[in-house]
Amino acid sequence: MNFALIFRLIGHVLFLEGLLMALPLAVSVLYGGEDLLSFVATMFLVIAVGQMLRRLEPKVQTFRSRDGFLCVALSWVLLAFFGALPFYFSGYFASFVDCFFESVSGFTTTGASILPEVESLPKGILFWRSFTHWIGGMGVLVFVLAVMPNVSASTLHLLKAESPGPSPGKIMPRIRETAQMLYLIYFGLTIVHIICLLLAGLPLYDAVITSMGSAGTGGFSNRNLSIGAYNNVAVEMITAIFMMLFGVNFSIYYCCLKKDFRSVAKNEELRLYLTIIVVVTILITINILSLFDFSILQSLRYAFFQVVSIMTTTGYSTIDFNLWPTFSKALLVTLMVIGASAGSTGGGVKVVRILILCKAAMHEIGKIIYPRRVRTVKNDGYTVEESGLRSIGLFFFCYMMIAFVAFLLVSLDGFDLITSGTAVFSALGNIGPGFEVIGPMGNWSAFSPFSKLVFSFCMLAGRLEVFPMLLLLSPMAWKRSEI
Amino acid sequence: MNFALIFRLIGHVLFLEGLLMALPLAVSVLYGGEDLLSFVATMFLVIAVGQMLRRLEPKVQTFRSRDGFLCVALSWVLLAFFGALPFYFSGYFASFVDCFFESVSGFTTTGASILPEVESLPKGILFWRSFTHWIGGMGVLVFVLAVMPNVSASTLHLLKAESPGPSPGKIMPRIRETAQMLYLIYFGLTIVHIICLLLAGLPLYDAVITSMGSAGTGGFSNRNLSIGAYNNVAVEMITAIFMMLFGVNFSIYYCCLKKDFRSVAKNEELRLYLTIIVVVTILITINILSLFDFSILQSLRYAFFQVVSIMTTTGYSTIDFNLWPTFSKALLVTLMVIGASAGSTGGGVKVVRILILCKAAMHEIGKIIYPRRVRTVKNDGYTVEESGLRSIGLFFFCYMMIAFVAFLLVSLDGFDLITSGTAVFSALGNIGPGFEVIGPMGNWSAFSPFSKLVFSFCMLAGRLEVFPMLLLLSPMAWKRSEI
Repeated sequence: MNFALIFRLIGHVLFLEGLLMALPLAVSVLYGGEDLLSFVATMFLVIAVGQMLRRLEPKVQTFRSRDGFLCVALSWVLLAFFGALPFYFSGYFASFVDCFFESVSGFTTTGASILPEVESLPKGILFWRSFTHWIGGMGVLVFVLAVMPNVSASTLHLLKAESPGPSPGKIMPRIRETAQMLYLIYFGLTIVHIICLLLAGLPLYDAVITSMGSAGTGGFSNRNLSIGAYNNVAVEMITAIFMMLFGVNFSIYYCCLKKDFRSVAKNEELRLYLTIIVVVTILITINILSLFDFSILQSLRYAFFQVVSIMTTTGYSTIDFNLWPTFSKALLVTLMVIGASAGSTGGGVKVVRILILCKAAMHEIGKIIYPRRVRTVKNDGYTVEESGLRSIGLFFFCYMMIAFVAFLLVSLDGFDLITSGTAVFSALGNIGPGFEVIGPMGNWSAFSPFSKLVFSFCMLAGRLEVFPMLLLLSPMAWKRSEI
Repeated sequence: MNFALIFRLIGHVLFLEGLLMALPLAVSVLYGGEDLLSFVATMFLVIAVGQMLRRLEPKVQTFRSRDGFLCVALSWVLLAFFGALPFYFSGYFASFVDCFFESVSGFTTTGASILPEVESLPKGILFWRSFTHWIGGMGVLVFVLAVMPNVSASTLHLLKAESPGPSPGKIMPRIRETAQMLYLIYFGLTIVHIICLLLAGLPLYDAVITSMGSAGTGGFSNRNLSIGAYNNVAVEMITAIFMMLFGVNFSIYYCCLKKDFRSVAKNEELRLYLTIIVVVTILITINILSLFDFSILQSLRYAFFQVVSIMTTTGYSTIDFNLWPTFSKALLVTLMVIGASAGSTGGGVKVVRILILCKAAMHEIGKIIYPRRVRTVKNDGYTVEESGLRSIGLFFFCYMMIAFVAFLLVSLDGFDLITSGTAVFSALGNIGPGFEVIGPMGNWSAFSPFSKLVFSFCMLAGRLEVFPMLLLLSPMAWKRSEI
């Protein structure tokens, strides 16, 4: 491992985090400055540490894949650590573990909160909480690549380790341009979202917070009742549509910008993603019809919002779906595992992985019937290599394995199996709510500090797609040996 | 597909089933003969159908892998169908779907029952119910191969499709001898088990029923309270130890018979299987210590029995583990998914698959750190081929996918998520009990007929290791085309 170079890059990340805190600081000043000092102190600290690390002079400039993975994992842990400091200094949180949990939940765009209510918190803190979603959604190191001029080369590994989905960074040949383009689309969509919400009647502050939450597919809201607090159909539909847009692979937008609509039309993941949303929305609409006195429109309104919110792993809610029938709940649990598209800001296993695994399974059955037929598993018309298939299969296994281990660890707290089980999938899929205790009207504060750390690990593992965090746990990664 | 040959083989299977019913018939006569006619009628029917099919004259003798898979899937469905008839004729069951469910549950060695109580049933019916475990445990087609002299050659595919685990039939070069050897070991162990139970004080009838249930890792008992009814520590420990023995890969016993103890010692699956049993037993012993003022010995007694019973996918119980703390329940759920060893009579994903997938995951992490290092994933010292890894990964995915689809379908019944979720894993893993409604003191009768058919599919998919049953659903399998 090239630790000097890794920590130098982490220095850039932390330095940037410090600079970004100027925004919540400004918000804090605007709204009275109650939480001003929390930000000033943190900024001072994080910029100092970042500056110190940035000065490291690595002896060699080789930056291998493993360095990329470790760098990404460590960056995110430290980012969340320093991001937790404003919460801690504000005095509104019970312990530092709670602050860390909230910060990890923010950066990983999970949106699971330990706060029983949020409306009494200072505006600056709430802004920072949601801003972490926006930062984490697109990735921090991607941001560093996009804006820092003097970052060393061969950092493709960073993009590879940080981007969600099996085949990232294929959009453009040059990384910096890719990163800039991704952030441009991201920024543009967020601004349009804010404007739409303003037009629908939301105050500016609420519009910005809500947009950052859906852009990152996070789910922190500044209202105790989440989006349901506004009881405004326009706001709900706008948010649902934008959540849906942010759950799409961003390369689709790039193709749209290039007017390459053919690639868009033949994208199988997009088709499946939209199909699942439509089908599950219809099923749930029918299933919950009796709860709303058989008003189809009312059922559709709640079903569509919740399906999109869970599938994109945002986690906003407009109603307590804890009270829905078992079939609807089971559908939501399934969506939690599937997740959004690769290359989006959403989490979960990702639609394309499920799609490819299903195709591979059919292929396996085909091979039993026609053993001599030579065919390959294809996606969007391209053959998926054997090694790619193995990676996806292993990803799925590791995802489930982490879920089971975490399930065992948090079940020590003694909550019921549904709470423990859905909490794990919610954290790992970066969703936010689950069922029972952590339902849309509940929160995560009742878990033990140990469980909160387990969930923090799950959230990071989910956001960074498992392997960087597993690498962090592996003793091999910490050896100095070079092969 | 060579349908003529397939149905000819199925004819052998049904004919044999008819002959095997002579045993419950004899038991029926011995205990008064109340259910005599149920067996006579069924025997007549199944032998007639079997004899008819056996007379089919296939034009070609080629028997391909796909024929093997389809033959196994169809055999099992028909076996269960005809096996359900004595239940139906007896008049003790509410509907034919219930009978079919009970029969599938028996043959697949699941042990899930729709009967609220069993002690009032005639002895012949109860014997047949448990005898299906014993028949299904080792496999029916294996039995056909072992005893029928005039079965066509190239039937290795049958063994392949019916045997549990990724690499069956490697014990001996000749299939018939392998099949005979497997049944000999199976028969021998069952007899020793019966003798031990007799020595511990059980009546002969109970001893035979209990032994057949543990030999097939099934779990049907002739007592309402399962093994707990005897409240006899010796009986519990003997049964636990034999369940454990039947959850071991039978090739281990073959090695023991050959005095090849080196292979036994280096078998990694066996080591992991035993380690899991010991570790989980200790964890649960500690976790349930505070319940019911248990002493350590008492806790150990219940924990050991339940761990072995669930891990081997038998499903006997001595206590209502529904009332245990969440951590213990979560451990049992995890064991349900892992299951027993490959090549045993148990179900689940199988220890060796989990082991190989874990190794492959570590291998993947190793490749990030040392990309140029050439290493392979090994099991018992042998390299696992890339195609083998892919198969195991796909098996795991299909297993989970079937679980999720079934979960969605049965959640339509409106039971809570825990009942629906654990029911699916219990059926798919061929275990028997789950939690809540289908806990050890509950039963499966409350599910809708549709759900019972879904569970029947799951049980068969679990027993036949997914692919034969998926093939049955595939339209490709029913085409006459030959490639």
